[in-house]
Amino acid sequence: MTNFKTLLENYKIIFFDAYGVIKTYKGLIPGIENTFDWLDEQQKAYYVITNDASRSPELLAASYHSQGLKAITADKIISSGMLAKEFLDLKVKKGLVAYLGTEDSAHYIEHPGLDTLPLQQMNEDNINDINALVLLDDEGFDWMDGLNKAVNLLRRRTIPAIVANPDGAYPMSKRDVGIAIGGLAWMVEKITGKKFIRFGKPDSQIFIFAWERIIKQHPGITKKDILMVGDTLHTDILGGNKFGLDTALVLTGNLLPQDYETRISSSGIAPSFICESAVVDLENK
Amino acid sequence: MTNFKTLLENYKIIFFDAYGVIKTYKGLIPGIENTFDWLDEQQKAYYVITNDASRSPELLAASYHSQGLKAITADKIISSGMLAKEFLDLKVKKGLVAYLGTEDSAHYIEHPGLDTLPLQQMNEDNINDINALVLLDDEGFDWMDGLNKAVNLLRRRTIPAIVANPDGAYPMSKRDVGIAIGGLAWMVEKITGKKFIRFGKPDSQIFIFAWERIIKQHPGITKKDILMVGDTLHTDILGGNKFGLDTALVLTGNLLPQDYETRISSSGIAPSFICESAVVDLENK
Amino acid sequence: MTNFKTLLENYKIIFFDAYGVIKTYKGLIPGIENTFDWLDEQQKAYYVITNDASRSPELLAASYHSQGLKAITADKIISSGMLAKEFLDLKVKKGLVAYLGTEDSAHYIEHPGLDTLPLQQMNEDNINDINALVLLDDEGFDWMDGLNKAVNLLRRRTIPAIVANPDGAYPMSKRDVGIAIGGLAWMVEKITGKKFIRFGKPDSQIFIFAWERIIKQHPGITKKDILMVGDTLHTDILGGNKFGLDTALVLTGNLLPQDYETRISSSGIAPSFICESAVVDLENK
Amino acid sequence: MTNFKTLLENYKIIFFDAYGVIKTYKGLIPGIENTFDWLDEQQKAYYVITNDASRSPELLAASYHSQGLKAITADKIISSGMLAKEFLDLKVKKGLVAYLGTEDSAHYIEHPGLDTLPLQQMNEDNINDINALVLLDDEGFDWMDGLNKAVNLLRRRTIPAIVANPDGAYPMSKRDVGIAIGGLAWMVEKITGKKFIRFGKPDSQIFIFAWERIIKQHPGITKKDILMVGDTLHTDILGGNKFGLDTALVLTGNLLPQDYETRISSSGIAPSFICESAVVDLENK
Repeated sequence: MTNFKTLLENYKIIFFDAYGVIKTYKGLIPGIENTFDWLDEQQKAYYVITNDASRSPELLAASYHSQGLKAITADKIISSGMLAKEFLDLKVKKGLVAYLGTEDSAHYIEHPGLDTLPLQQMNEDNINDINALVLLDDEGFDWMDGLNKAVNLLRRRTIPAIVANPDGAYPMSKRDVGIAIGGLAWMVEKITGKKFIRFGKPDSQIFIFAWERIIKQHPGITKKDILMVGDTLHTDILGGNKFGLDTALVLTGNLLPQDYETRISSSGIAPSFICESAVVDLENK
Repeated sequence: MTNFKTLLENYKIIFFDAYGVIKTYKGLIPGIENTFDWLDEQQKAYYVITNDASRSPELLAASYHSQGLKAITADKIISSGMLAKEFLDLKVKKGLVAYLGTEDSAHYIEHPGLDTLPLQQMNEDNINDINALVLLDDEGFDWMDGLNKAVNLLRRRTIPAIVANPDGAYPMSKRDVGIAIGGLAWMVEKITGKKFIRFGKPDSQIFIFAWERIIKQHPGITKKDILMVGDTLHTDILGGNKFGLDTALVLTGNLLPQDYETRISSSGIAPSFICESAVVDLENK
Repeated sequence: MTNFKTLLENYKIIFFDAYGVIKTYKGLIPGIENTFDWLDEQQKAYYVITNDASRSPELLAASYHSQGLKAITADKIISSGMLAKEFLDLKVKKGLVAYLGTEDSAHYIEHPGLDTLPLQQMNEDNINDINALVLLDDEGFDWMDGLNKAVNLLRRRTIPAIVANPDGAYPMSKRDVGIAIGGLAWMVEKITGKKFIRFGKPDSQIFIFAWERIIKQHPGITKKDILMVGDTLHTDILGGNKFGLDTALVLTGNLLPQDYETRISSSGIAPSFICESAVVDLENK
Repeated sequence: MTNFKTLLENYKIIFFDAYGVIKTYKGLIPGIENTFDWLDEQQKAYYVITNDASRSPELLAASYHSQGLKAITADKIISSGMLAKEFLDLKVKKGLVAYLGTEDSAHYIEHPGLDTLPLQQMNEDNINDINALVLLDDEGFDWMDGLNKAVNLLRRRTIPAIVANPDGAYPMSKRDVGIAIGGLAWMVEKITGKKFIRFGKPDSQIFIFAWERIIKQHPGITKKDILMVGDTLHTDILGGNKFGLDTALVLTGNLLPQDYETRISSSGIAPSFICESAVVDLENK
């Protein structure tokens, strides 16, 4: 167990996962605002690297602010949805983009030249105008209708299919989880035999997206100056390790103090450090 | 291409798949009643071996009758749901059995000593009384609610989980398919890390169930006397082959005349014979 | 924890897994001969149901005898190799059967009308005469040569491919395992996109094979009279459960006293009973 | 079908896959040197992006030179092995790195502070000093010995495991393939339950690696200025598409003129352009 504050002293930039590190289903992790106050004071930079594509960075930031955490502004949030947006900009220049998710999530796929279509509105008249399918969020549609439409669209059209959140499930309460859009995408893939392009941790592309933003603002930075902090082995820790970053596992989310050792040894995914939480204890000198 | 009637002459008992062989989304295959008339006339026995656990054999037979096919009676239908029932009889002697599916499908899991519970009615008061989960049909429940409940039940309780129809999808129209309960089960398995017990073709257990019924009525019969007729390589043909039966692929369902050769060579699953359809042409001498 | 001897009193027929139950890499489990003496004395029947297709039942029995366990005779051994043999008898009537394995294992595929060919001897002259591929054992061939030949044979010929031992690995010493032929088959399947027919636990067909032998000798027996004893959740216990048998997990093989509870809850595969070992303590009244 | 030379005019930088694009099992693709002559003349830059980690860029370049293609120098080759090397530099600072592959391939894992160990030399004395496992090439070791050692190493030690070539198989002749190290890694993963870190197309990290080298030498370049040319949908085209590049499929390798349409529609992976080959026809005005 490493003291989180002591650990931070060795890095110039900190990447935080959101869910299980900064907040849980119950709201902010108590004391987490101390961490960001201290980082600001020390002039260390920080970014939130999240697989949550349900809302825009602006709406995600507004949610932190309404809970009293002012430090996290939209420009500090890098979400897998932003990669979906970049992909559409580069590769799908015109036509309709069909999506599964809420209206809030559809923000990611709006850009000049593209029209968005909630997949539930797909019909024989517009199916041939659809040039991409994007799965954004598990809410905002009836699953039976939406998933059957996704399967049939991919059977009939050879178009890019993107899932903007690769997670299979997310915690909904102390004991229960909810199936996430990444889990729904597995089923569509298995039935159609077609692969979704997945954006988000552990894939390197979200880290390079963050990296490219950082090197402009922090010239001379190297990967050794960055610490990735997360609660999930298969996304945060694996992704950070693979990208070449030091990684810190915190025990406030997916893994509990009593089971993290078993999970590390059974998965073979080892963080560089293990900390109780991402809360900086200001009393601790 | 083998003539179906000529082929039948070599066997004493015929196993038919239902969907794609006897009927399609449009109703009965035209002329199929000739086949059963001829089999009756020749005193050959026949059985329908189906992965359809949405309704009881009685209701399935009633549906054939209402369309004008009187030959198929409930005692000639062997469905994967019957194996689920046998499993519960032998292995889950008491308590609640939760299910996903319609009320019609729940017939399969009713038996003395067990109470059935639509999974949507699971709550903190009854979750600990549930001793098995059975996935029967993709209809009869809201997918988001039902699938999330299935995931959380299997995370919290170590109980047998059964899926009575292993198919991932089924044809809904000339061009579109629907996700079947077997496809939904894949997702629940992947998220929970727990395996469903799957009853139905290609698993041998449904063939042995049919076999045990047959040897009582047709003493002296051997596997060489039975022909399995189906439209799907991965279920009917693979299952029949593995059980040691001769198999005939018909081209009225999943596989079309222009693609069956590619599908056989890419899957490596080869039927013993290929026939245009399971319709006996009575004109043909 | 249930006392094994007390448990046996409730059954008429006992199915034993071999490896991890009767013997380990070190030889016979000390005291196991007491179990069979007691079963003989009580006139209870017993069978060994094994996924070991490396040698014929005669050679497997000879190995027990040479270690001092005379009770297990060839007629009491039912191996996955016997199912491969039955398959070839019924479905592959003539031509060459290529195999990977030792010469001892090739016994299973010898029968009138079929010639066997060690896969390493496949060449352009005989490849088109090969009518089936059978994977029997991980020994007896160079892996690079044999596995590459298996891949290319299945790419070029649409023939049945069978693996007679579905296990992925087997224990070689207290801490190390060896990759088994079932594990090698996974790789060939993934590369070729073609599925092997797998015989052996947990598949029902080996239980059916045993069952058909038993009902001739023990008329009136039901599934409730049989106990399956094994050390592995995914083969012995899952297969026994699915076939409708009561199952007993013993802790002398794959699972240790300190980890069986975690493994049961994480896999969702629950035995009916848990016993320290399959050794009957004769002192214990 | 797009004319390759006409297509190139729209881009400033060309990424080429090696196998199936520049060379095949028979040697260089006839006329391919014209392409590089023309690119040099037009002052367009080019890079070879390859999943071949069997030899260093220097040795790979020497092989092109010996066949008469002088244009491809070591600094123009970006191989998945270089990512493995970067990973070890950043994340595994000291101790032993065990590997499977030839001595030539071991070049990638040599760097100050690390000692390399052919996995076949692993024993009880050194196993606890091994801090990473790298799978480089399918040659240079006995598969049974090496793969069993890989399995047991990963069962006993929680260390990073890397595979520097994610391909499952590679063409060895007009009709036959060989199992590649990526295919061997699948089996080790499945048996141990531990995931390899995979470097190479389609993963974004190899494109990022190339990109970072390019932006230094070609300031102001954007992704729209780059064309990825490849023969394989699942690596070259999927990887290029995902990274946001335009992609051109050539029909001189994995896909043939008669089957590319089926393969595109069944996989859902669509290149931006399709060209007969990567050979620039200099006669063609």
